[in-house]
Amino acid sequence: MLHNTHLQQLQGSYLFTEIVNRTQAYKAAHPQAKILRLGVGDVTRPLPLPITDAMHRAVEELAHLDTFRGYGPEEGYAWLKQAIIEHDYRPRGVELEQEEVFISDGAGSDLGNLSELFDTPNRVAILDPSYPAYVDSSLMAGREIEFLPCLAANGFVPELPKQKADIIYLCFPNNPTGVVLTRTQLQQWVDYARANKSIIIFDAAYEAFIEDPDIPHSIYEIEGAKEVAIEVRSYSKSAGFTAVRCGWTVVPKASGLNAMWMRRQCTKYNGTSYIAQRAAAATYTPEGKAGTQANLMHYKHTAQLLMNGLQAMGYEVFGGKNAPYIWCRVPQGYTSWSFFDHLLNDCQVVCTPGAGFGPSGEGYVRFSAFSNRKDCEEALIRMKGL
Amino acid sequence: MLHNTHLQQLQGSYLFTEIVNRTQAYKAAHPQAKILRLGVGDVTRPLPLPITDAMHRAVEELAHLDTFRGYGPEEGYAWLKQAIIEHDYRPRGVELEQEEVFISDGAGSDLGNLSELFDTPNRVAILDPSYPAYVDSSLMAGREIEFLPCLAANGFVPELPKQKADIIYLCFPNNPTGVVLTRTQLQQWVDYARANKSIIIFDAAYEAFIEDPDIPHSIYEIEGAKEVAIEVRSYSKSAGFTAVRCGWTVVPKASGLNAMWMRRQCTKYNGTSYIAQRAAAATYTPEGKAGTQANLMHYKHTAQLLMNGLQAMGYEVFGGKNAPYIWCRVPQGYTSWSFFDHLLNDCQVVCTPGAGFGPSGEGYVRFSAFSNRKDCEEALIRMKGL
Repeated sequence: MLHNTHLQQLQGSYLFTEIVNRTQAYKAAHPQAKILRLGVGDVTRPLPLPITDAMHRAVEELAHLDTFRGYGPEEGYAWLKQAIIEHDYRPRGVELEQEEVFISDGAGSDLGNLSELFDTPNRVAILDPSYPAYVDSSLMAGREIEFLPCLAANGFVPELPKQKADIIYLCFPNNPTGVVLTRTQLQQWVDYARANKSIIIFDAAYEAFIEDPDIPHSIYEIEGAKEVAIEVRSYSKSAGFTAVRCGWTVVPKASGLNAMWMRRQCTKYNGTSYIAQRAAAATYTPEGKAGTQANLMHYKHTAQLLMNGLQAMGYEVFGGKNAPYIWCRVPQGYTSWSFFDHLLNDCQVVCTPGAGFGPSGEGYVRFSAFSNRKDCEEALIRMKGL
Repeated sequence: MLHNTHLQQLQGSYLFTEIVNRTQAYKAAHPQAKILRLGVGDVTRPLPLPITDAMHRAVEELAHLDTFRGYGPEEGYAWLKQAIIEHDYRPRGVELEQEEVFISDGAGSDLGNLSELFDTPNRVAILDPSYPAYVDSSLMAGREIEFLPCLAANGFVPELPKQKADIIYLCFPNNPTGVVLTRTQLQQWVDYARANKSIIIFDAAYEAFIEDPDIPHSIYEIEGAKEVAIEVRSYSKSAGFTAVRCGWTVVPKASGLNAMWMRRQCTKYNGTSYIAQRAAAATYTPEGKAGTQANLMHYKHTAQLLMNGLQAMGYEVFGGKNAPYIWCRVPQGYTSWSFFDHLLNDCQVVCTPGAGFGPSGEGYVRFSAFSNRKDCEEALIRMKGL
């Protein structure tokens, strides 16, 4: 039996392991220290009551013979797809058919598995810095990657690929830089993909943080996007579902990939948890919307607090508006890892070193608005004293 | 952009669609008919109270700030892995490390995704008849398949592959034939795999139906299996979790594939729903065990009822003991599809035509013990009147 050598040769995920290792080493040496974690990309606010009520009801349905249900459709229940179409797309002028929406257990699985739609020799373009899964799943498939640097010099907005790219991963609002694209900027990518017969995998996991009316929430707000774009969405950050596990992916029929994705999902996926789907549907009720909006407002205020605090100390910061992440330039003389060590050792604050997201992340660290509010306030006071 | 041509060329899943189409056509022509569905491989009994209690508690944890949690480990929580090791393996003399157990959202995903561990040119051996996902995921990966016929002549026990097989999919208790392997029979497969450096993907989704003490519940009860076998398990049928979504896969370190699977899961999977994992853990409490056992006994009695009823009418039946499926030879002069039509048209009973599971399934239909008990009783009466 031959191994998948691409997978075998992949190195261990260095970034988060290394953060944990360094933090644990510090903690071991200083057991009394109160460490403040400002790097985490995970939500911290509890689920709103209307959501947990819906989950309790779903659990009760499974507890009784007359309401019990087993397997749902692999591609998700029609009532959830319809709610997504009516609440997330129609108000933005985007019309989708139910068959174009696939409910998932979160963006992570689909961002990895979508890779199976394509043949190995395709060339991939990926933003640098970026979420590591785009790179890793492309390497596992044995594909060649062109990295598109996002630097202060280009406002962290990537330029079009130099060599023809077949598959393009875009993530806006961006993780880790917090940068967003305007309609005009995103139109260039759709035009490029149409001209080059490329496919864009558009990761819009942080869409709920957009406030500026000129920023598109969905790539399908852009003319021609249905022919060339797959959009991956998630309730993880918009509704706090990182433990619940629910998201969705749009594969438009015009992309020519819809039937293939349906076939893939029906073969290798047995559907999303019924409780998670009922929880997701509850986010669209007036009470559910109010609850999730309150949590989003909380995170947005945390972002503002971090931005203001860091700027007042003279740090150069990007993102943080329309996005939960703040991309902070490290002071002269530091690398992203040496600044990480400085903050950990000298004020017990944990951030995420930018170099872990790719070479162009060097010189930056990421702060997360999902962090505990009180920890952020205390971290800013400690950092002021440095 | 180039498509995955293997995936593109795959035909639609014919079997279940065709059953639905023929049943709906009959229903449309005979709106008053009470159709009895005896083919379904999905559970019908509600979740026991100790399980739903655990789910309610998990939901409540997510509802409050001090107990809220976000992402869990991609490979699952240690408390669930430990419970699996202590309840499903240790009593059978199998010792596993926590790092060898990967919690999943069900067997379906893992049975498909495990294919990524291997290189394309590997040769695959698959039982005929079998669950369609083994064949489909192998075809998607572009691999050559040798089918191993399971016929009355060999007691539905497959012979070893004629050509060297690199990857072998085994499913025991078998779907659809309901046949099980003894320790001695399974030892031959482990020996074959060790001699040929093959890997066995052992689907034990129906393990909970085993009653005979000479039938192994886990492939790791067989000497040497840790070197050559991955075992896929599920709470779907043992605890009625087809809507909840939870299972696990064992990838032993001795197989040389453990680190690769960990890397795959950490890249393309964001972990199993917290609520599902708490539900799974509750199946191991004394109350949870009692509740799931009661449901299993119910299904086993249904299997017995179907076996006895069919045999009394002169049908030749296999399986049904140590397994939830009854593999029934169709009467002389029928094909599996013409007998399906006969039962549908003449007594409004729906079964699953064996030919849908592969060419060697021709001449048989599958009845399922997961079907509603009253429907089974009525179906037997109607069939007697044919």
